[in-house]
Amino acid sequence: MPSAQSAAAPSADRRTAILDAAIAVIARQGVRGLRVEKVAAEAKVAVSLIYYYFGNRTGLVRATLEHSNEQAASTLDDAEGDERSGRELVDAVLLGEFDDDAHTVALSIVWGEIVASAVFEPDLREQLAAATERWTTLVRDTIRVGVADGSIPAGVDAQAAATRLTATVEGLSNRWHAGLLDREAARALLTGAIAAELRG
Amino acid sequence: MPSAQSAAAPSADRRTAILDAAIAVIARQGVRGLRVEKVAAEAKVAVSLIYYYFGNRTGLVRATLEHSNEQAASTLDDAEGDERSGRELVDAVLLGEFDDDAHTVALSIVWGEIVASAVFEPDLREQLAAATERWTTLVRDTIRVGVADGSIPAGVDAQAAATRLTATVEGLSNRWHAGLLDREAARALLTGAIAAELRG
Repeated sequence: MPSAQSAAAPSADRRTAILDAAIAVIARQGVRGLRVEKVAAEAKVAVSLIYYYFGNRTGLVRATLEHSNEQAASTLDDAEGDERSGRELVDAVLLGEFDDDAHTVALSIVWGEIVASAVFEPDLREQLAAATERWTTLVRDTIRVGVADGSIPAGVDAQAAATRLTATVEGLSNRWHAGLLDREAARALLTGAIAAELRG
Repeated sequence: MPSAQSAAAPSADRRTAILDAAIAVIARQGVRGLRVEKVAAEAKVAVSLIYYYFGNRTGLVRATLEHSNEQAASTLDDAEGDERSGRELVDAVLLGEFDDDAHTVALSIVWGEIVASAVFEPDLREQLAAATERWTTLVRDTIRVGVADGSIPAGVDAQAAATRLTATVEGLSNRWHAGLLDREAARALLTGAIAAELRG
């Protein structure tokens, strides 16, 4: 029988609550330490509900990756329609990965963990490849907005620059989370990498 | 009692054999899956010998990081005294991270794993910070060789460029090992990143 709580929450909300709980658990303990039971406890739902929605642990990790990717993409959706140049939007999208609110930090740790885990868990690779391409494409298209509005030189290879800059964000993020770089240093380094890539 | 094999091998050789075994185990299964028993089986030594040399699992992981870092640094020692420009040496040192011999690949996976693990294992951070600084300093000094011999423009900030380029290597390496990029694509992207950073 559904509990009073789960009966009160619509299905989509409960699914989102489980994914937010998975993000919190991965950010604290890593993907490799992820147990469905821990996520159920964090989300205050039955373990069986997680299996019902996601099938198994891999399905849960994949859905968590998708969920964190959607949240990252929504940053740019929010920016659309504003008056910033393409160059300013590139800065906003990439530097936004180093915001210090707890949710952004958790998403960033989750992303690094899933990339690292995919080395040893081939089941994650297809989903990760799609998520990485989605992110790279978003940055590439933002660079192209800058080329179109004149804020970025026409000679820039948008696809290559986007792939390199997102990989640099990942490298710097991992060092940040491992305590090797503070957030401000990571942002300053990334600002320099963007400038070097987008000089044309 | 020592076995015939361990009696025959000098102590330094046995220590190195254990560290090479640890590299092999981490490259296959990750740091989080590392058990001292697996390394002992891989190295064909007694578990007690590993505790004798390294104290505990964390000591073994730290020593493995140090060992893999020494091997990476030796790449440049080999290059010293040759007639390549500083710019060519920067390419050699950074692109060498994407060589396809099994040992280089294993060291690269181990490095990525230790960075990822340090997010959740603070005991690894001090050692990782020292190893990362050593690698960055090596790249920075190679850039300075290029500035001195005129192969790299004087306006380049060697420290910042070295930090960014090594972080980009880490980001691209992780994508390579996770199956998101092939080795040649990673090398081509890195070549472009070096060119962008070292234009001055």
